[in-house]
Amino acid sequence: MGARDVGLPATVPSAGELPAEVTIWEVGARDGLQNEQSVVPLEVKLEFLGRLADAGLTVLEATSFVHPKWVPQLADAEALLAKLDRRDGARYPVLVPNERGLDRALAAGVGEIAVFGSATQTFAERNLNSGLTEQFALFEPVVGRARAEGLPVRAYLSMCFGDPWEGPVPAAQVVDAGRRLLDLGCFQLSLGDTIGVATAGQVERLIAAFADAGVPASALAVHFHDTYGQALANTLTALRCGVSTVDSSAGGLGGCPYAESATGNLATEDLVWALDGLGVRTGVDLDALVATSAWMAGCLGRPSPSRVVRALAG
Amino acid sequence: MGARDVGLPATVPSAGELPAEVTIWEVGARDGLQNEQSVVPLEVKLEFLGRLADAGLTVLEATSFVHPKWVPQLADAEALLAKLDRRDGARYPVLVPNERGLDRALAAGVGEIAVFGSATQTFAERNLNSGLTEQFALFEPVVGRARAEGLPVRAYLSMCFGDPWEGPVPAAQVVDAGRRLLDLGCFQLSLGDTIGVATAGQVERLIAAFADAGVPASALAVHFHDTYGQALANTLTALRCGVSTVDSSAGGLGGCPYAESATGNLATEDLVWALDGLGVRTGVDLDALVATSAWMAGCLGRPSPSRVVRALAG
Repeated sequence: MGARDVGLPATVPSAGELPAEVTIWEVGARDGLQNEQSVVPLEVKLEFLGRLADAGLTVLEATSFVHPKWVPQLADAEALLAKLDRRDGARYPVLVPNERGLDRALAAGVGEIAVFGSATQTFAERNLNSGLTEQFALFEPVVGRARAEGLPVRAYLSMCFGDPWEGPVPAAQVVDAGRRLLDLGCFQLSLGDTIGVATAGQVERLIAAFADAGVPASALAVHFHDTYGQALANTLTALRCGVSTVDSSAGGLGGCPYAESATGNLATEDLVWALDGLGVRTGVDLDALVATSAWMAGCLGRPSPSRVVRALAG
Repeated sequence: MGARDVGLPATVPSAGELPAEVTIWEVGARDGLQNEQSVVPLEVKLEFLGRLADAGLTVLEATSFVHPKWVPQLADAEALLAKLDRRDGARYPVLVPNERGLDRALAAGVGEIAVFGSATQTFAERNLNSGLTEQFALFEPVVGRARAEGLPVRAYLSMCFGDPWEGPVPAAQVVDAGRRLLDLGCFQLSLGDTIGVATAGQVERLIAAFADAGVPASALAVHFHDTYGQALANTLTALRCGVSTVDSSAGGLGGCPYAESATGNLATEDLVWALDGLGVRTGVDLDALVATSAWMAGCLGRPSPSRVVRALAG
């Protein structure tokens, strides 16, 4: 399997037009649950993943092999993968931070992984204990070994727009880091607005900067957080720039509506509402998804941050 | 003063481009507070309006002359206008439902009014005790007398995209109702998505339908509710279609973050965050606005639904 040949659309839409179809990369079970205060029981996670697949989601990031000391919410990764009822046609990538994580993922028999890099020096230091330049030496053996085992590898890139310590992040710096991850053999680069500060013009400019550097929008995905209410607007902007894979989290998991600073992911339901209205295919049954997120909100003991879930299941 | 010559931009941007400047029609003190459960004391309202003007907002819908039986939250309209400290360069339109309301507004010395119509039969019956066709006979003397007194009149049109009883609303029906309001002499038509269901394609199509009927985007404003999380994305879409007046509510007033179905207005802060990032001028000092909404949230005893307010003032 060659690089960048997983999950790409057959055709790239012309500038300004929406794609006919969008692949939703559902991160609720991983990025969502790892940022929830409560640790969700294994059986609930398994039911959650099953219901998400039944609702039509086909890419379900299942868990993470980050050390349990850092992410106790996902300490049950091996048990989850052992018991996971994989649905036909669905993919279950897992997050892998390093070679130790890859060893665990391979032992668990995963079919696809994702690595995560940083677009800034400070976050590379804090999140990876590495550096903006040095981080690629960490990823090289992970991606190389995974590819040698036949696993497609996605790359996340954090802090692509703003960084809490460094402020606005220069597009050239993001493009350089992103290209290095793709050059290692990752098939797709997910551009993360980790602190949710981006606005639509920045999104357009960054995607254009990647195109200028030879990275087509079809190799990119977007990953927006709704901290400043911009996630959906930014996502639709990216779609009009040729991106057709969007990360989102069922029910907006990962951001608590009662927290002083809500930093959740774009809610999958709010995205699907928009795309349904725009006639863009996602394959998702919104009613089944809303019911799933309402059930999960009940398990978590608090309302969903998704506006659509609150409107339809309230 | 001729029709449609208040608050319009000097130039209309070409299709797809954002305007250089956006006029924010701040509805927090009227549409926001009339939908809050608590009745806010007069002194708090006066301080709110003063702080909003100090933050740079120049169109502040101040109150409503709907009968206090229907909107007890704004029963103090006369007292508010008597005590209001009007800032230079700011406009303070008030909502007027009928001739009795106009009498009260004129007696209170208002300089500008707004009327509100319905794009659907059912809502005309329920909200106006009239009908889709019959409602214009109610507005004609209100607009005529106000114009004769030299007052500019704005028109709101509710349920322009979806109606809870009738479902999707045909664009031709919305255009017909909107044109009749403009033909009465209203200078601007604010297209309301009262139940927050619209998506971006509908917004484009409705604005195009108005253009086909001879109503330019410069005569339109947009008024989105965030019930399904679409308000900002829809607003940016409208701006790219040539609209340059946007209704929003400071702090997202009018929608409670704890309610099962949050139906608030687009938060002015979330709009300003987007427009600041896009380099579109609004004249608003975001920090001053966030401080005002945080203070008002304290008066109301609950967090602001605005994501920006929660992020910056949390």
